[in-house]
Amino acid sequence: MSNRLEIGQKTELLNEAFHYIDRYSQKVVVIKYGWSAMDDKEAQRSVLDDVVTLKKLGLRPVLVHGGGKEISEWSKKIGLTPTFKQGYRVTDEATMEVVEMVLNRVNKGLVNSIHELGGRAVGISGKDAGLLKVKKKYVAKENDPNGVGFDIGYVGEIVAVDSKIITDLLDKDYIPVICSVGFDENHHSFNINADDAACAVAMAMKSEKLAFLSDVPGIYKDPNDSSSLISELDCDKIDDILEHGQTIGGMITKLNNCKEVIKSGVERIHIMDANVPHSLLLEIFTDSGVGTMIRRS
Amino acid sequence: MSNRLEIGQKTELLNEAFHYIDRYSQKVVVIKYGWSAMDDKEAQRSVLDDVVTLKKLGLRPVLVHGGGKEISEWSKKIGLTPTFKQGYRVTDEATMEVVEMVLNRVNKGLVNSIHELGGRAVGISGKDAGLLKVKKKYVAKENDPNGVGFDIGYVGEIVAVDSKIITDLLDKDYIPVICSVGFDENHHSFNINADDAACAVAMAMKSEKLAFLSDVPGIYKDPNDSSSLISELDCDKIDDILEHGQTIGGMITKLNNCKEVIKSGVERIHIMDANVPHSLLLEIFTDSGVGTMIRRS
Amino acid sequence: MSNRLEIGQKTELLNEAFHYIDRYSQKVVVIKYGWSAMDDKEAQRSVLDDVVTLKKLGLRPVLVHGGGKEISEWSKKIGLTPTFKQGYRVTDEATMEVVEMVLNRVNKGLVNSIHELGGRAVGISGKDAGLLKVKKKYVAKENDPNGVGFDIGYVGEIVAVDSKIITDLLDKDYIPVICSVGFDENHHSFNINADDAACAVAMAMKSEKLAFLSDVPGIYKDPNDSSSLISELDCDKIDDILEHGQTIGGMITKLNNCKEVIKSGVERIHIMDANVPHSLLLEIFTDSGVGTMIRRS
Amino acid sequence: MSNRLEIGQKTELLNEAFHYIDRYSQKVVVIKYGWSAMDDKEAQRSVLDDVVTLKKLGLRPVLVHGGGKEISEWSKKIGLTPTFKQGYRVTDEATMEVVEMVLNRVNKGLVNSIHELGGRAVGISGKDAGLLKVKKKYVAKENDPNGVGFDIGYVGEIVAVDSKIITDLLDKDYIPVICSVGFDENHHSFNINADDAACAVAMAMKSEKLAFLSDVPGIYKDPNDSSSLISELDCDKIDDILEHGQTIGGMITKLNNCKEVIKSGVERIHIMDANVPHSLLLEIFTDSGVGTMIRRS
Amino acid sequence: MSNRLEIGQKTELLNEAFHYIDRYSQKVVVIKYGWSAMDDKEAQRSVLDDVVTLKKLGLRPVLVHGGGKEISEWSKKIGLTPTFKQGYRVTDEATMEVVEMVLNRVNKGLVNSIHELGGRAVGISGKDAGLLKVKKKYVAKENDPNGVGFDIGYVGEIVAVDSKIITDLLDKDYIPVICSVGFDENHHSFNINADDAACAVAMAMKSEKLAFLSDVPGIYKDPNDSSSLISELDCDKIDDILEHGQTIGGMITKLNNCKEVIKSGVERIHIMDANVPHSLLLEIFTDSGVGTMIRRS
Amino acid sequence: MSNRLEIGQKTELLNEAFHYIDRYSQKVVVIKYGWSAMDDKEAQRSVLDDVVTLKKLGLRPVLVHGGGKEISEWSKKIGLTPTFKQGYRVTDEATMEVVEMVLNRVNKGLVNSIHELGGRAVGISGKDAGLLKVKKKYVAKENDPNGVGFDIGYVGEIVAVDSKIITDLLDKDYIPVICSVGFDENHHSFNINADDAACAVAMAMKSEKLAFLSDVPGIYKDPNDSSSLISELDCDKIDDILEHGQTIGGMITKLNNCKEVIKSGVERIHIMDANVPHSLLLEIFTDSGVGTMIRRS
Repeated sequence: MSNRLEIGQKTELLNEAFHYIDRYSQKVVVIKYGWSAMDDKEAQRSVLDDVVTLKKLGLRPVLVHGGGKEISEWSKKIGLTPTFKQGYRVTDEATMEVVEMVLNRVNKGLVNSIHELGGRAVGISGKDAGLLKVKKKYVAKENDPNGVGFDIGYVGEIVAVDSKIITDLLDKDYIPVICSVGFDENHHSFNINADDAACAVAMAMKSEKLAFLSDVPGIYKDPNDSSSLISELDCDKIDDILEHGQTIGGMITKLNNCKEVIKSGVERIHIMDANVPHSLLLEIFTDSGVGTMIRRS
Repeated sequence: MSNRLEIGQKTELLNEAFHYIDRYSQKVVVIKYGWSAMDDKEAQRSVLDDVVTLKKLGLRPVLVHGGGKEISEWSKKIGLTPTFKQGYRVTDEATMEVVEMVLNRVNKGLVNSIHELGGRAVGISGKDAGLLKVKKKYVAKENDPNGVGFDIGYVGEIVAVDSKIITDLLDKDYIPVICSVGFDENHHSFNINADDAACAVAMAMKSEKLAFLSDVPGIYKDPNDSSSLISELDCDKIDDILEHGQTIGGMITKLNNCKEVIKSGVERIHIMDANVPHSLLLEIFTDSGVGTMIRRS
Repeated sequence: MSNRLEIGQKTELLNEAFHYIDRYSQKVVVIKYGWSAMDDKEAQRSVLDDVVTLKKLGLRPVLVHGGGKEISEWSKKIGLTPTFKQGYRVTDEATMEVVEMVLNRVNKGLVNSIHELGGRAVGISGKDAGLLKVKKKYVAKENDPNGVGFDIGYVGEIVAVDSKIITDLLDKDYIPVICSVGFDENHHSFNINADDAACAVAMAMKSEKLAFLSDVPGIYKDPNDSSSLISELDCDKIDDILEHGQTIGGMITKLNNCKEVIKSGVERIHIMDANVPHSLLLEIFTDSGVGTMIRRS
Repeated sequence: MSNRLEIGQKTELLNEAFHYIDRYSQKVVVIKYGWSAMDDKEAQRSVLDDVVTLKKLGLRPVLVHGGGKEISEWSKKIGLTPTFKQGYRVTDEATMEVVEMVLNRVNKGLVNSIHELGGRAVGISGKDAGLLKVKKKYVAKENDPNGVGFDIGYVGEIVAVDSKIITDLLDKDYIPVICSVGFDENHHSFNINADDAACAVAMAMKSEKLAFLSDVPGIYKDPNDSSSLISELDCDKIDDILEHGQTIGGMITKLNNCKEVIKSGVERIHIMDANVPHSLLLEIFTDSGVGTMIRRS
Repeated sequence: MSNRLEIGQKTELLNEAFHYIDRYSQKVVVIKYGWSAMDDKEAQRSVLDDVVTLKKLGLRPVLVHGGGKEISEWSKKIGLTPTFKQGYRVTDEATMEVVEMVLNRVNKGLVNSIHELGGRAVGISGKDAGLLKVKKKYVAKENDPNGVGFDIGYVGEIVAVDSKIITDLLDKDYIPVICSVGFDENHHSFNINADDAACAVAMAMKSEKLAFLSDVPGIYKDPNDSSSLISELDCDKIDDILEHGQTIGGMITKLNNCKEVIKSGVERIHIMDANVPHSLLLEIFTDSGVGTMIRRS
Repeated sequence: MSNRLEIGQKTELLNEAFHYIDRYSQKVVVIKYGWSAMDDKEAQRSVLDDVVTLKKLGLRPVLVHGGGKEISEWSKKIGLTPTFKQGYRVTDEATMEVVEMVLNRVNKGLVNSIHELGGRAVGISGKDAGLLKVKKKYVAKENDPNGVGFDIGYVGEIVAVDSKIITDLLDKDYIPVICSVGFDENHHSFNINADDAACAVAMAMKSEKLAFLSDVPGIYKDPNDSSSLISELDCDKIDDILEHGQTIGGMITKLNNCKEVIKSGVERIHIMDANVPHSLLLEIFTDSGVGTMIRRS
């Protein structure tokens, strides 16, 4: 009897999942994989395993990642003091060198792990095939919001995405793994915020989905009440949230980006906790999901 | 907490299913759908829904069916008395006419239901595009096993399968639905046992799987003990079963056919109960399944 | 000398025919094959032989057929009384069952005969791949022409044609043979007038030709004068004929349909006697023809 | 009544012709068009019209021609005296120049006429794209049959055929028209016997047919009895004919060539009178034909 | 040291050339090869060698040629007196016959030489595949500029170019070699000025370049000063030149044609001396060139 | 006059170069770009410019590079002491991390420069798409040549090349830039000698050419005599050289590798000085070249 019941639950879950597989067949899913979630080897393995599964099920995953803690560690090793201005790493010439070295090594590490899990990935940066072109970014000074802003060095704001290399790699059945380094009109290297890179790639590819995998479970009605996680959110309700609810720093920027991304044609954005095993599969292939899904209204 | 546990079960089930989807992508699955299981409208809907799901998941299902009870009913309506010889319907000219009319109508009914469930099917018989060529079948007399046997009229034994029409329909993304009528060298119509037709089609297509959906849950070690269902069975253990276990009539023929089918290149045969909702999905996409799977040793 | 003359006639005939072969290469020709003409086995063989020849010459024939006499016979066998209202068969649930059984059996018989003559055909109904969608048809009451009309049961009026299956079969080099059964929005089966089905298919395919093969030689200036057969008729002269000439029942409806069919893009409509051996070839490939050709003005 | 009869004859003729059209679809037919038959403008028009018809019916005609009388006329115009040795034109440097000029002009005239009749032809010589490579031919001296033979100047014997240009032109739907001029290893121009050129092209293309259109109606059992024309001839009966029957000069060589051509893979060779209007169509598309057909035994 | 210098010059030249190869890859270049330059066998070999090289480098050369001196010689041989009216050969029926014979023979000679140099060419005239359609040309009388003009016989003015055969030959990797003979609406042959033919072909093909190879090194500021050769000329400066500089007969017409050709979409026109070895390569693949290049302003 | 002479030299050089372009069209050329040659920014620019030119001319260049000096510098920055054993860098865990970071950064720098010069490159390591699989390498001890050898840490010997990613990038028209890092069966990263990597890639691709661009001009008969550079060398003369001539360390290994590379199917190997501007173009496209070419005997 309990067995009969279990069969009913199984078929319900399978039918749910199969529905989404059919729906997302051949669709591009851009996955931002954030750094603090990258330290836990087991969590990382679960995330990359899901990425390989997405590929096998006929979706077209694209992984975008940053570096984070490791950059600071290497900076210190060679005697540099990591400095931040409004969340952005102040990036002088020497720091930029470290950023690029660390990010590319992390990149090849992810590629290698995907290979180990049965996938075939190619790791590129925004400099390959002219993928991410930037201009220098200035950070607004609070007391002079209309001025030029602080010079934070080689930190870039994306001005053009040439996504041909991504399409080409997908066509040849690889999983593109992209680290957030770009180049400016003088072909100098620039550090890019990984969230910005993921959004820009999703918009350029007009991807079906953009998924943020970090150490945040999603958006809360009340950031202080862990039971107030929002499961689904219409895009045009974001302003409400910004006014009344969610006020944690990084999330404000992320929510504002989400509005723009969805406006440009991306169908759904997911925010989820990379530490929940297989959160990516659960979020994409079950009705209930595990994080917050923002959808076009 | 229970939620966390549930998530673990979900991901396990999904990963199991996703593994099989990847493995069976673009593979042909021939499904014999037996008649007594066809009476229950809800069971039928569940079976056809699974067929549509298989198609959407990238497999290539082919449905083969017979008629059964309805043929006898119509025979009686026009004053004929249904007669059987060793399980075969004795088929004179008038009965053959009824057989063909009923089978084709059932065929179009299945096509119609698949359409209703979101699939696109085309119903054919063994006469379309020369699919199933037969010769007259004689049934051995018990007291004269080497003689010509009983003449049971227009009952055919398949001698050639021209499967081009099936491949063509699959290439154009339709679900072929086949009723078990064939033609002989004089282009006369013949009644064919639906199990025979399904086996012949599976062998001609060198299909990945052949699934028998009827009112039998599978093969039992001890036919009298409903808890002795065999979940997986190596093909070379069939002779053991035939000697010591399963001895119910129809099943003996079926098991002998299975040996031949697997020898000809089909990878796996499944026997399952059409009345278990979504038994087809459970059998194909979960490790434990719900019926008996016979595999190449 | 007479031999020399004969050569001249031969070359003239051949050049005529060759001209039409070139002109109609790869063009779709929809052939309505009517039921009373279907009883004579030899006439049927001649018609199907011509269809196979059309295919070999590079045209793309599509056969549409009804049932007729046989439906009534089977209805009576099971105790139903065939009833007609203004030419339409009153079709209750039990009759519909008979209609569908008989039509599909006739369908597979034609397929089989084509196979015997060297062609490769696939028999479908309007339910396959969602080909013919209908709504319930009401027959106008004479004394209340604007009222709802008589309810004549499951008789359908075509509201949508999804001709993809026809194109797909033609692409794979089969001769589609279509019986006039459709489905409504509730996926119930409906009986369709075969002329209506042929017109709807010809219009949906934007076929080059539509040919009616029945037991009528064509249109007469004076229906009482067998020497007044019209060989060619401009479409815009049809109203003249309707007013002054041809007044036989079925022909009026047919002529009105012809106007609509030609308006929708079909180039030429032929009406001819299926009992004249090879009338289809003579009508299509000779200047003089044997029936009546209606052409776009 | 007589009308009814006529219809029977028509359909018989059409069915005969249609059978051959189906059979020869996309097949290559090499047609040697001989010079004395080329003077009569009306006969020429009939021949070229047939060539255009063959193309339209889906065959792939290739025309090979010589020059003949016109070459002698132009030779005389500039003061040369045409000389022949065993049927071959003795071709010195000055004569070769005339040969090439006249043949190419005749070639473009044929191309132009085909265009006028609705076909699209391209005129080439054996020098285009390296089509016909030759070596110098010597004519055996009667009193010294094993010696070097007479030097007859720039008369070539074909040693290699590079038929790519013919295939390319056929692929692009042109009718290739080829004049019988070739080149030797020093890239000097050579005169080639047009029958030899046609045979070489037919063999290189492994054509379905080779047709000789000249002023000879075919092969006679008794050359003196015009009623003894042989309609069909098995290839292995040729030696019989050579021994007992046909003994007219040019025909002996032609028959010997025919044996070789058929041995190399060509199915049928036709010999017919270009002056019979549309003899090409009658010979190819009717059972009785108008000339002699030699077929593989 | 001098060696080091030489290497610098080499790499500069190579880089120049390589730049142009990249730029002109798969581009069509129409080359008019003029008659007086055709007498010198060595110069001819150099020109054709360059044409073969262009082909191998990935460009798509098309050669257009006339006849000239040889036509007059042959005319005289058969007793005709060459007559010219304002540069055009007065072409009666007999002369036209000579023109066509000579041009086609020259054509096949060029084809043969290209073959000898390793290329694969096909020689066609404007009559092949309906390439060049003309109407009769009249030459204006000086004292009656608005009158009908002189009748100069079969001299044609191009009214339509059907360039499909050129594209087809290029697609199949041949070098088309075209002689300047056309046909009018009555399919009569006409003599065409080879410069006119080259311009018409270049315009119809929207070729990248049109190159005139004759015995003129280019355009001079001062025709009497051989050091005043203009290397590059903007198209809109042509009128200046016509007013103040270059006044030699043939060149005026050529310059006026050039304006029209460039207006129709051809990018660059080159005028150069065929007697400078490999002038075609030097002009196309070096910055300095050897003749005059006229470019779109 | 001198001008005329110069034109002759130009055309000779161009014809030489054009010959090679034709010959190497679509051929793969693997270029090993060595590190000491990488310091001079101008030399590097010249090398990469040549690589871009090769691509534009229709060849398919693949760049393989190492790191070198910069690795040692970074090692020292973080307190490591670079140690070498028989030319191999002893690579412990910490060093491996530095190697991978530096090589990938150099890699993206080359990609960026190619982009600046108008090419489109993608930078990968041997870990991408499973390109270079290795096993641990041991260095033979001099006093125990048959022993296990010195353990030099994460230095790899290539055991398998999966060149699909290279072919895929070439098919999509990118220039692959490969840094010499690989992975072993445990998916650990390994340092690979860049010459070894280049040889393995050339062999796996069966490339037309393998070019070593370093600071060595080529092979000398007498290493002490700079005028004894060998321009062309048959592969089977290498043993002679090894015995009597060239004895400088690295070159012995390189020459031994060359023998194996050529045996595996690579046609030609070039050794040249990256400091000679455009040495790659000169070596590939001129007869005389600037370095040493080793060819299959």
